[in-house]
Amino acid sequence: MELDKCINFLLSTAQHNVFQYLSGRLASHGITPGQYGVLNCLWTHRELTPKQIGELLHLEASSVSGLLDRMQKNDLIERTVDPENRRVVRVSLTQKALDIQPSIEQIIDEMNAHVLETFSPAERETLLCTLSVISNRVLN
Amino acid sequence: MELDKCINFLLSTAQHNVFQYLSGRLASHGITPGQYGVLNCLWTHRELTPKQIGELLHLEASSVSGLLDRMQKNDLIERTVDPENRRVVRVSLTQKALDIQPSIEQIIDEMNAHVLETFSPAERETLLCTLSVISNRVLN
Repeated sequence: MELDKCINFLLSTAQHNVFQYLSGRLASHGITPGQYGVLNCLWTHRELTPKQIGELLHLEASSVSGLLDRMQKNDLIERTVDPENRRVVRVSLTQKALDIQPSIEQIIDEMNAHVLETFSPAERETLLCTLSVISNRVLN
Repeated sequence: MELDKCINFLLSTAQHNVFQYLSGRLASHGITPGQYGVLNCLWTHRELTPKQIGELLHLEASSVSGLLDRMQKNDLIERTVDPENRRVVRVSLTQKALDIQPSIEQIIDEMNAHVLETFSPAERETLLCTLSVISNRVLN
């Protein structure tokens, strides 16, 4: 098979290209694309457990834990133990993370528009829908 | 923006899902999806420099070097110094890498068919073409 017909190769190279571009755009705010994912979840839900964050972002527990460690050091999130169940940790945002929301969302909007700008509305719709299906399927 | 409209998030989660699935399928042959990329280039071109492999696979030199180190240890490739220009290394396949070509290509064909099976021919075409455009664009 030609590599440019291999869905794994195409996803890897497209993801790498967009990830590098977005990393550069977000660097001035000191956050990574993965950290944006966590911020997005918490801007919407305000407070979540690490397990809920992992489910929303399709990430393993160890990946979430590493992201949260770095975000706590960077004063973006707080972790508090639930007083009613001390095995449960709750993650919430700092004021700093609330303050940067408009700037970060503008970068994400611009990134999306730039990456998709060469496609027709129908092509964009098909691309986003098919990627969402692939993301959510159990492949085995 | 909803995460399921963010092209970076969708590419990352779709790529992760397909990569994990393909990794599992290739594990019985002791190779990774990245190593399959190198094999694919060499099955087609027979002999390449590390730089040419990096260009074909959209990978940085350090990533190619790491892949080739592991493939050489696993007796899949050979690196020889060009006798006419000793600064040029040429990468070629071992007999072992030639022998596994039919089995690996069958796994790749099956993976592609499985990942794309829920889509119409038009959706598949749009997905592959739009991913190829995103992979090959210079984003800045």
